Amino acid sequence: MRALVWDGARLRLDRAYPEPRPDPGMALVRVRLAGVCSTDLQILRGYLDFKGVLGHEFVGEVTAGSPNLLGRRVVGEINFACGACSYCARDLSRHCPKRRTMGIAGADGSFADSVSLPEVNLHPVPDSLPDEEAVFAEPLAAAFEILEQVPVRRESDVTVLGDGKLGLLCAQVLAGTGARVRLAGKHPAKLDLARRLGIAALDIAGALPARADVVVEATGSPAGLELALQLVRPRGTVVLKSTVAGEHRLSLAPLVVDEVTVVGSRCGRFPPALAALERRSISVAPLVERIYALEDGAEAARAAGRSGALKILLDCR
Amino acid sequence: MRALVWDGARLRLDRAYPEPRPDPGMALVRVRLAGVCSTDLQILRGYLDFKGVLGHEFVGEVTAGSPNLLGRRVVGEINFACGACSYCARDLSRHCPKRRTMGIAGADGSFADSVSLPEVNLHPVPDSLPDEEAVFAEPLAAAFEILEQVPVRRESDVTVLGDGKLGLLCAQVLAGTGARVRLAGKHPAKLDLARRLGIAALDIAGALPARADVVVEATGSPAGLELALQLVRPRGTVVLKSTVAGEHRLSLAPLVVDEVTVVGSRCGRFPPALAALERRSISVAPLVERIYALEDGAEAARAAGRSGALKILLDCR
Repeated sequence: MRALVWDGARLRLDRAYPEPRPDPGMALVRVRLAGVCSTDLQILRGYLDFKGVLGHEFVGEVTAGSPNLLGRRVVGEINFACGACSYCARDLSRHCPKRRTMGIAGADGSFADSVSLPEVNLHPVPDSLPDEEAVFAEPLAAAFEILEQVPVRRESDVTVLGDGKLGLLCAQVLAGTGARVRLAGKHPAKLDLARRLGIAALDIAGALPARADVVVEATGSPAGLELALQLVRPRGTVVLKSTVAGEHRLSLAPLVVDEVTVVGSRCGRFPPALAALERRSISVAPLVERIYALEDGAEAARAAGRSGALKILLDCR
Repeated sequence: MRALVWDGARLRLDRAYPEPRPDPGMALVRVRLAGVCSTDLQILRGYLDFKGVLGHEFVGEVTAGSPNLLGRRVVGEINFACGACSYCARDLSRHCPKRRTMGIAGADGSFADSVSLPEVNLHPVPDSLPDEEAVFAEPLAAAFEILEQVPVRRESDVTVLGDGKLGLLCAQVLAGTGARVRLAGKHPAKLDLARRLGIAALDIAGALPARADVVVEATGSPAGLELALQLVRPRGTVVLKSTVAGEHRLSLAPLVVDEVTVVGSRCGRFPPALAALERRSISVAPLVERIYALEDGAEAARAAGRSGALKILLDCR
């Protein structure tokens, strides 16, 4: 099959990559669309030393698996857990210490004709949802994860820092709580997009916003946390969303002096994301910048890495 | 009066420093004993650019002030707040954005014959409590602050990282909740002291402890947070106690991937600390390394800065 493979030095299309042979409990999924995420770009910079088929966002069709899934259009959670440990028992399989993570650690990903996942990770996609929106289930679930971790109320004042794909998703999810949400970024076109989506937006090249109760750091940059600490009020909360390869350099004294809470936030559950997509309470279609053919994956990765790039999709059909 | 003054370059005893003239609402306190804190040593390295009389831990006697305080032995909270802002209104005056902080920012401190504080900051000391124990009210309140910020339960597994003064106080406070507490450090003599205080202690030069629900970082070192992130379980909490001058360098990816919460923690309320000292549920006397005369303040600061030093006190009488 075709697969976009990262060998630690180069991202190249392999036209004769072996098709996955699913173990018991696993399904085979024929990929329709896949999404390029900032974490993929971090991997190309050495993050986690991953080697193999890249990609962890997708929508596809089950071609081998249990009868209840066979032929269905699905999206899939990316952590392959043991199912037996204390995290799995507490419905926190995404923290299973034995997990493999699709396209990130120990398991091939979705930039290919087919990918294999545990059947328990799969979620059927409502018929009303086109592929171009369903493919956002994974990053949107990561945005909903914030609400599982941090109390955000109608009276909360929230700043989302970073006007990229994840920032635009987080701002919409947080605005859904009724909280006062503003998106702070530096790309005028994306700030305009936020406004069209009904989100207050401001350019941080001008004045910084007033200190907020909650600041979501979604810049994807090592410098984001230091700025977030300037934008949060004493005793407030910073949600750290960016996984960045390499070291941060920052002064943490303000965190201690202002007794700020920093919450690391990664993957989320899919059901709230799929439900929001189905009822159209979150807009994702305007976030698609361009769809590339799988064959043009290396070019797609370059496009995704450009400053200000929105969501790049790969058509794997 | 005598005062130990930091001018940005040198710590020197001034024998003719002007005695404070308390504004309305302020009291004058004749200092009996003062404690040297790691923050004082950070200031000597440039932290916060403070200049003036150093010191924020003390026990003394009110020599000018309201009749209900005059002549009483007191300890005092270090943040001088405006009393009118939203933080002050929520009983969080220690986060008042207009605050001055005794011996740290904008107000002279306690390494002197006398110091002036707002009367609302003063707490009378129970007669049964000797000066050598009452002087621990401020750092012990900082240890109790953890319980105001983080839920610690009987079933919680807690590691206190750092066997210095603050670590020994935090470990005792946390053990008082009934949680399983271990102190992890690298100074055999202080680990032995912890054991004599009834705290499980282990040398991190050997094997690292199992991952805990809560890790309190009290090393006073910029490297402490990175180690704390290795010692906490996924979805666990790190309490960051060290205020350190200068930059941290660390990878924050583990914080995001493991969805760890980092809580900055600084000053606490005095009443729980005074109550614990009065009922002798926390041992502080074994933490005193040596008492120096105020005249020997510069030498005392050097002694406090030695690796493995316990609490250094200054006798200001």
